Amino acid sequence: MKAEIIIIGDEILNGTTLDTNSQFIARELEALNIEVIRRSTVKDRREEISQALYEAEQRADLIVTTGGLGPTKDDITKKTIAEYLDEELVMNEAVLQHVTDFFARRGRPMLDVNRLQALVPKSAVVLHNAMGTAPGTFTEKSGKAFVSMPGVPFEMRYIVENGLVPLLKERLDNQHIIHRYLHTVGVGESSIAAQIAEVEDALPAHIRLAYLPSPGIVKLRLTGTGDDEATLLNEMLVFEQGIKDILGPVIFGYGNETLSSCIGKLLTESGKTVGTAESCTSGYISQLLTQTPGSSTYFEGALVTYSYGLKEKLLQVNHEVLNNFGAVSEETILEMTRGGLQQLGVDYIMATSGIAGPGGGMPNKPVGTVWIAVGDKNKIISRKYQFGGDRTRNIELTSIMALDMLRRFILGIGEGA
Amino acid sequence: MKAEIIIIGDEILNGTTLDTNSQFIARELEALNIEVIRRSTVKDRREEISQALYEAEQRADLIVTTGGLGPTKDDITKKTIAEYLDEELVMNEAVLQHVTDFFARRGRPMLDVNRLQALVPKSAVVLHNAMGTAPGTFTEKSGKAFVSMPGVPFEMRYIVENGLVPLLKERLDNQHIIHRYLHTVGVGESSIAAQIAEVEDALPAHIRLAYLPSPGIVKLRLTGTGDDEATLLNEMLVFEQGIKDILGPVIFGYGNETLSSCIGKLLTESGKTVGTAESCTSGYISQLLTQTPGSSTYFEGALVTYSYGLKEKLLQVNHEVLNNFGAVSEETILEMTRGGLQQLGVDYIMATSGIAGPGGGMPNKPVGTVWIAVGDKNKIISRKYQFGGDRTRNIELTSIMALDMLRRFILGIGEGA
Repeated sequence: MKAEIIIIGDEILNGTTLDTNSQFIARELEALNIEVIRRSTVKDRREEISQALYEAEQRADLIVTTGGLGPTKDDITKKTIAEYLDEELVMNEAVLQHVTDFFARRGRPMLDVNRLQALVPKSAVVLHNAMGTAPGTFTEKSGKAFVSMPGVPFEMRYIVENGLVPLLKERLDNQHIIHRYLHTVGVGESSIAAQIAEVEDALPAHIRLAYLPSPGIVKLRLTGTGDDEATLLNEMLVFEQGIKDILGPVIFGYGNETLSSCIGKLLTESGKTVGTAESCTSGYISQLLTQTPGSSTYFEGALVTYSYGLKEKLLQVNHEVLNNFGAVSEETILEMTRGGLQQLGVDYIMATSGIAGPGGGMPNKPVGTVWIAVGDKNKIISRKYQFGGDRTRNIELTSIMALDMLRRFILGIGEGA
Repeated sequence: MKAEIIIIGDEILNGTTLDTNSQFIARELEALNIEVIRRSTVKDRREEISQALYEAEQRADLIVTTGGLGPTKDDITKKTIAEYLDEELVMNEAVLQHVTDFFARRGRPMLDVNRLQALVPKSAVVLHNAMGTAPGTFTEKSGKAFVSMPGVPFEMRYIVENGLVPLLKERLDNQHIIHRYLHTVGVGESSIAAQIAEVEDALPAHIRLAYLPSPGIVKLRLTGTGDDEATLLNEMLVFEQGIKDILGPVIFGYGNETLSSCIGKLLTESGKTVGTAESCTSGYISQLLTQTPGSSTYFEGALVTYSYGLKEKLLQVNHEVLNNFGAVSEETILEMTRGGLQQLGVDYIMATSGIAGPGGGMPNKPVGTVWIAVGDKNKIISRKYQFGGDRTRNIELTSIMALDMLRRFILGIGEGA
């Protein structure tokens, strides 16, 4: 089954509001093995909506729209869709009762425009909206299904989860889609592609590989389609193993894991704790670690020492070392690491000091020069990196590389693939 | 001028990755008075890309695409676009040099696939990508313009801001476009809209107002178009003043200022320093402060005390206070504030402690309960907030409200408008 998603609304189209609805709907449909083949955003005007519906119907079996179902007069979606489907709008008594109760419960007066929300296409299946007053609808016409939902994200999500998904599950055929994710760190997209070219070239047509890069990280996604789920999965696992054999420890995780959650898993397993001593990243690593729910069991805290004074006071960095070698030096990062371990009383620590830019560069230490160290009470490993000129990216890359250094440190594996 | 945006990539289409590129591009185009009439997301396959280009060309003058320009083989966009435009792909020496330098600077080997990134449509204007290796291109054909950019957000943004926008400005008619930004904090979009409805209703057709919301912050953008720049600016300043008179201290800045840069300005002017004592935000405020270049002149550092133990050790929070009132309490936040001021030796401090979620909620302290305090050696102000159930949003909102509390503290203005 193929689906298209149409987001209706000027506020999305012109960028006032970020569209998160189409991502949510796409994920829900893909999880049902329904392939999303196109997403569009259109103005909330009659001709544009009709045109988009027409185009989508040529390509897809299922057309899902959100937006334009509110009570105000600029919401013409419902009328347009009914007209497009050649359906009369009729008052639905169950919806009317829900709308009436909704206002009564909130002690707010129900207006005529609110009554009109109970109008639905005559042959539509109503998708109940417990979160608001505009119902979702599911209408079939010539073998195609048209779904219409309000654009308010939490109302739409309720309708998808409680109305649309159960209804679609009943109607599906037997094709399975499987996604497998492998997460890599520290190696560029093109280098990875060159390394695993042989595996990629051997992929059959029904299994595809995609590279999804973000700073420091490249996510590999295998997508397979087949009639039998177990056969497909076994087939995909062979290719996955091929990639794992080649890339080795460059792969840090699978599925929906993150670098932060993988470190969390390692620490939880060993009952160890972690903290950070950060200069140029200024708490960025600390907040990455705590993006993983439950991180309070292993993350103790961080010392962000941006100034020379605090490096000396909080991390016991020697005054002479700072003066002689500067804050961005191996000598200083080692002192920061030792001081951080002691002050935070943690098992592992990550420390950073660098020139994030745009200012602060020197001939022998250009912008993007960063020292990172990781260690425990027995051993410290430090490394110098040379990143680029963008401040935000330098901070992100430093944080990702620090997390990777710690991962390798805990696992006892060296740098490189 | 009318524009369409085409996002190319399976990972966006199927919901793996949230699309933020089309919002960014739409805002930038709308800021140039270019109307965005449709946005589409399509698969990274030849036929789908060609079909989307064809459809867009029927409706729009400018077609902007992102995605599918990376070095790996799932990226077929460049070839498809060149083919669609009937353009030969030629090696661009300047781009090749840039790619070569890019790899040399990072000490990484340049592969054949990287060389291929320097291939561009023969008649294209190259839009330089200082952030990566895939160039943007601007190609004209039969009076329509086709822009192609990589999908990596920070590379795309660089190309839009430094290449595409200046180029489009040259090609637009002689009309002057002026943007004026007012940044507000702590008040919702609908509340602001209700307060300034009178000003908005009085705007002439050539001056438009847009609301650009993000967590805790609503940016107001006035866009004016006119033949004479000075006349237009004077006219716009009248409306801007009208908004300022109504909203007062809810407005924290103008132009491209951020809450962090505004605080930086106040601190630089007074020669004072700042630091943070963070629990639930775990360094998020610290890294927001250092997003402003030059922040090292006033930002000293941060104590991130996630555990009870570090709250006691690093911030001298009383053991009994923690045990009796818990970490998320007024009593604890006041101790954290005092301890932070002393330990960091700063003039001002922000402190946070809350339940970010998803776990950790209690009947009397549900997820989203947050205490924030700001202070100096003479005075401390603390405040309890009740945010929602989303962890990331709670951390962002806590950080923004802490920065706003500090801004008001320094300026000596109370809460509310």
